[in-house]
Amino acid sequence: MGNAAEIYGKVYVLRLGHRPSRDKRVSTHVGLVARAFGANGFILAPICDESVVRSLRRVLEEWGGEMLLECTDNPLSYATQWRRSGGEIIHLTMYGLPVDNVIDTIRMSPRPKLIIVGAEKVPGQYYELADYNVSIGRQPHSEIAALALFLDRLYKGLELYLEHENRCLEIVPSPGGKKVVEIGGGSNAADDRADVRP
Amino acid sequence: MGNAAEIYGKVYVLRLGHRPSRDKRVSTHVGLVARAFGANGFILAPICDESVVRSLRRVLEEWGGEMLLECTDNPLSYATQWRRSGGEIIHLTMYGLPVDNVIDTIRMSPRPKLIIVGAEKVPGQYYELADYNVSIGRQPHSEIAALALFLDRLYKGLELYLEHENRCLEIVPSPGGKKVVEIGGGSNAADDRADVRP
Repeated sequence: MGNAAEIYGKVYVLRLGHRPSRDKRVSTHVGLVARAFGANGFILAPICDESVVRSLRRVLEEWGGEMLLECTDNPLSYATQWRRSGGEIIHLTMYGLPVDNVIDTIRMSPRPKLIIVGAEKVPGQYYELADYNVSIGRQPHSEIAALALFLDRLYKGLELYLEHENRCLEIVPSPGGKKVVEIGGGSNAADDRADVRP
Repeated sequence: MGNAAEIYGKVYVLRLGHRPSRDKRVSTHVGLVARAFGANGFILAPICDESVVRSLRRVLEEWGGEMLLECTDNPLSYATQWRRSGGEIIHLTMYGLPVDNVIDTIRMSPRPKLIIVGAEKVPGQYYELADYNVSIGRQPHSEIAALALFLDRLYKGLELYLEHENRCLEIVPSPGGKKVVEIGGGSNAADDRADVRP
């Protein structure tokens, strides 16, 4: 499976309510899931936390793929503009409609998709602006898990086989230990390699 | 769908390498995903971070379900003991075998399952101890997403319909807004209700 954008069109993730003091790691995980599960854009709001952007940029450089990285200090305006220009908005919330009930309709729509994932409380305007308020189970859990499951349902599990272009590193699946190949370089049985997760 | 333990047997999640200074929120998300996606136990290691345990306990009280909550300062011994007493170990790592290749075998096994998710670098002993080193895609992303996807594959998506026993709160899915019912109490269209996520 090749480039997700060519196959699925434009899918951006808008991470709402980021507070650098406590959300650095969670927002970075949201961005990493966006990339790994096939989204083509990640927008951080309302504060442009350079440490998050830097972590994501480093992963893009090493592990490949194309994903637009942006910040906005006015996410409501960003989302409103998205709809005005013909896109649709999917807001992930445990209060929404079950993903299984709406995913086929969402997948069939050719409109560019903006997936909104909030940290803590999301203002009511987003519920109203969204074309779909979608729940991944009706339990409190994690916006990271919710985004992963949503993209997995959207792409029917094929996102796990994405080939990210322009990668320097690639993993060779192994029953035990770690095997990483440097593209353009040699093979590297890197048992003591540092994990790249934030 | 009722109690996951009755249907699927014992599934515990061991969260490895927790450091209170930076992992509070991520480890709490791991615990919340464990509960919401049907695991029956969550073990935090090597430091017993009371704030994580307290958050999880509060969610269990409000939203129901039964999940054992424990800490261990010796996770390697815990995992070794698990195997000795007949259980099997699944270590989630981006270096492992693709989940789609092994999930049917894992699901069919009646042995109690200990799912290990690490923060950053996991020592080599766990790779050797594990019955399965399993990857959720071969990209760096998030242990929270990895756990959610793994449990989703294990339970074939049915975990999203779990009914958690002894719950005080329940969500009524809604296309817009938030609707929460207090079990034993009234309905509550809680538009300004604080999110329960950590």
